[in-house]
Amino acid sequence: MKINALALNCSLKKSSGKPSNTDRLLDKAREEYAALGVGFMSLRIADYNVLPGTKSDMGEGDEWSAVLEQIKACDILLLASPVWVGHHSSLAQRVIERLDALFFEKALQDEATGQYLTYNKVGGAVVTGNEDGAKASAFRFLAVLSNMGFTIPPNAFTYWVGPAGSGPSYIKAGGPQHLFTNRAMKMMVHNTAFMAELLKANPVPTNIKALSASAKEESDSGAQTFLSQ
Amino acid sequence: MKINALALNCSLKKSSGKPSNTDRLLDKAREEYAALGVGFMSLRIADYNVLPGTKSDMGEGDEWSAVLEQIKACDILLLASPVWVGHHSSLAQRVIERLDALFFEKALQDEATGQYLTYNKVGGAVVTGNEDGAKASAFRFLAVLSNMGFTIPPNAFTYWVGPAGSGPSYIKAGGPQHLFTNRAMKMMVHNTAFMAELLKANPVPTNIKALSASAKEESDSGAQTFLSQ
Amino acid sequence: MKINALALNCSLKKSSGKPSNTDRLLDKAREEYAALGVGFMSLRIADYNVLPGTKSDMGEGDEWSAVLEQIKACDILLLASPVWVGHHSSLAQRVIERLDALFFEKALQDEATGQYLTYNKVGGAVVTGNEDGAKASAFRFLAVLSNMGFTIPPNAFTYWVGPAGSGPSYIKAGGPQHLFTNRAMKMMVHNTAFMAELLKANPVPTNIKALSASAKEESDSGAQTFLSQ
Amino acid sequence: MKINALALNCSLKKSSGKPSNTDRLLDKAREEYAALGVGFMSLRIADYNVLPGTKSDMGEGDEWSAVLEQIKACDILLLASPVWVGHHSSLAQRVIERLDALFFEKALQDEATGQYLTYNKVGGAVVTGNEDGAKASAFRFLAVLSNMGFTIPPNAFTYWVGPAGSGPSYIKAGGPQHLFTNRAMKMMVHNTAFMAELLKANPVPTNIKALSASAKEESDSGAQTFLSQ
Repeated sequence: MKINALALNCSLKKSSGKPSNTDRLLDKAREEYAALGVGFMSLRIADYNVLPGTKSDMGEGDEWSAVLEQIKACDILLLASPVWVGHHSSLAQRVIERLDALFFEKALQDEATGQYLTYNKVGGAVVTGNEDGAKASAFRFLAVLSNMGFTIPPNAFTYWVGPAGSGPSYIKAGGPQHLFTNRAMKMMVHNTAFMAELLKANPVPTNIKALSASAKEESDSGAQTFLSQ
Repeated sequence: MKINALALNCSLKKSSGKPSNTDRLLDKAREEYAALGVGFMSLRIADYNVLPGTKSDMGEGDEWSAVLEQIKACDILLLASPVWVGHHSSLAQRVIERLDALFFEKALQDEATGQYLTYNKVGGAVVTGNEDGAKASAFRFLAVLSNMGFTIPPNAFTYWVGPAGSGPSYIKAGGPQHLFTNRAMKMMVHNTAFMAELLKANPVPTNIKALSASAKEESDSGAQTFLSQ
Repeated sequence: MKINALALNCSLKKSSGKPSNTDRLLDKAREEYAALGVGFMSLRIADYNVLPGTKSDMGEGDEWSAVLEQIKACDILLLASPVWVGHHSSLAQRVIERLDALFFEKALQDEATGQYLTYNKVGGAVVTGNEDGAKASAFRFLAVLSNMGFTIPPNAFTYWVGPAGSGPSYIKAGGPQHLFTNRAMKMMVHNTAFMAELLKANPVPTNIKALSASAKEESDSGAQTFLSQ
Repeated sequence: MKINALALNCSLKKSSGKPSNTDRLLDKAREEYAALGVGFMSLRIADYNVLPGTKSDMGEGDEWSAVLEQIKACDILLLASPVWVGHHSSLAQRVIERLDALFFEKALQDEATGQYLTYNKVGGAVVTGNEDGAKASAFRFLAVLSNMGFTIPPNAFTYWVGPAGSGPSYIKAGGPQHLFTNRAMKMMVHNTAFMAELLKANPVPTNIKALSASAKEESDSGAQTFLSQ
């Protein structure tokens, strides 16, 4: 069964003729996935009009559904972002907010088990910036993806940043030849690919509905009426 | 094959007659694991003299090796911590610093593949506090554990905190009957147990040494002499 | 000299007839400022088309300049945000990204001293959420505002969140009567008002241009061509 | 009136003959402060037996009081730390935990106003690491110090890290000649020195006790019995 990876590039810039720094690093991941027979697609969030909100459909003009369809179709999701003021981009946070719907909308959950549609998919993170903030960004991505139903294998992120303070970015600084970043990228690709195949053959059996019912029995239900995270 | 879970309770207090708040929540996890046939052991880090440093042996008086032996033996590691000033405890950060040795010490890595000894183990997080800061703590734990070789399944943490500002803690506030916390705990237990069994039967094949060699070939090795994260 | 406070409410929702939870808490701050003779204005970022980017003018359709004009005019800036997935909103991060221009655009800096236009202004933070993540958000706001030239007095934030897991929001949960939140709000208001008056009478004299020149003399300028943070 | 700065170096290593990387950067701050007539003292936390806990006296063997006395005596406090796994050190978190007592212990608060003893003192941050994580660390320090009563002036931190992945540390990498770090250090020194003098001549008048009483009047006191943060 063919495995497919999807990268969501949360650069602040729309795609145009010239590649972004994050794109360049994603291209390396694409090649590495290809060598393993894994498909790869990259979307630029800035190319879509993703409206603010936490529902999967925010009404007129909202283009999130096009992104969500690709997330549904993928086996591996890589959140990719530049760093601004020590932090992932507002567009990356926008993606996370829109995924919040997983916790609330029945249409995004399995009817029998209550699993979110992200269960049995694998998560990873790719970050580029010209200065410090990559780990804060990547670590947040990995944890949020796990919270949202993805499985995170070992060493599931890669990043590039230059030394302290602003300076040349990934491409200009020779980042594509940076050993640490290339090595981490390869580990991410191999580990996410392995885990995606493993979960495809062995899906998580957890029945969230049954566990919720069991939790209700031992809880003071009067104190709380909402369940989702 | 029997699966075993290990919780490292990073409370600032040594164990004594009375249970800590975090212990009480861990006890619930213990029961849930037991129902699945998974063994469970909990250690209090404050009971050990874990010296500052990033090596696996920091010399005279250091008792980290006793903790490390239990980590080696477990299949599931739960990092557990109280919240202080919006953040996990200094003892939890101490544990993370000591695990940094995984990246540097050959004795903690597989000779053939270079995998850290944490590969094929599963990570999770448990946090209790009387006020805000649980997600910041739990999210950091999950990401760091992934970075350090553990696999993080979906919904791999539980937490309890009260409303804004100081107030009664978990036990006193009736936390053991809190629906959200109990439900998240059950999801964490079932997902970590499933993943631990799956990885035991299907270990990650990634050869880090081979990937490092391959990364070196396409990198400007002159620019960098260290490899580890 | 009259002091004026500006709150940027980074709720994901546009303003409409009904007040947001964050608005309700800001209303309390407004009353407290009024008692001190401090003016107060609140803007909803979602009401403006603030385009992605890090320049103060991102071209056609960008409405950031209307917000920036109010920032220029204020003495106290409060960043206000809801919490989503343990984190401030994408619109708050958008505001921070747009303020990044302070580091790069000469028109936003004093010609003689190089100080950003934010120097001698005071920063604070207001966060509401139905669950954990307020401190992570508020702490980031305070630090970023300091990084961007604002002065942060003691106890410069207030927040409200409910106990672990989703539940009723600030207004519905009786947050306006929550002692901790009200007390912290009063401390924030009094401390920011005092500091704003103090800085108006005693502006920061630091000459960034002179310090940059001095730093260049003791640095290896060949290694770095960019200066800004 | 002479102004005095205190740096708490939270390196994991005890002081010995050779300077730590963080010490070397602090030495530069010392010189810059001296040029302004500001005194400077640096303590290594690892040299003291600072026990885990959140009280100002944790009993037998605890040496925190020696540190606390220096904090009481200083006008400017710089929290200084290395970066481990993208994060400030466990010893820095230990210092923060011990300062939590400010919120609870009457002996650390002014009897008339309830102000913590840190009011009218100024905070800053200094971070060195061989890889990414400096902003996450410094930003947390600045926000926590503000939360704990310190005032944070503009541009109150400096940091040095190398490019992505492990590599040579500050001294070995030529960090003392790094323009960005030197410039940020000078801005931090000048801004903290100015603010310390300003607050010495114009102390914050906020009466926390009166504000607490006022907050109680408009709050549902039944819902909450604890006040401190």
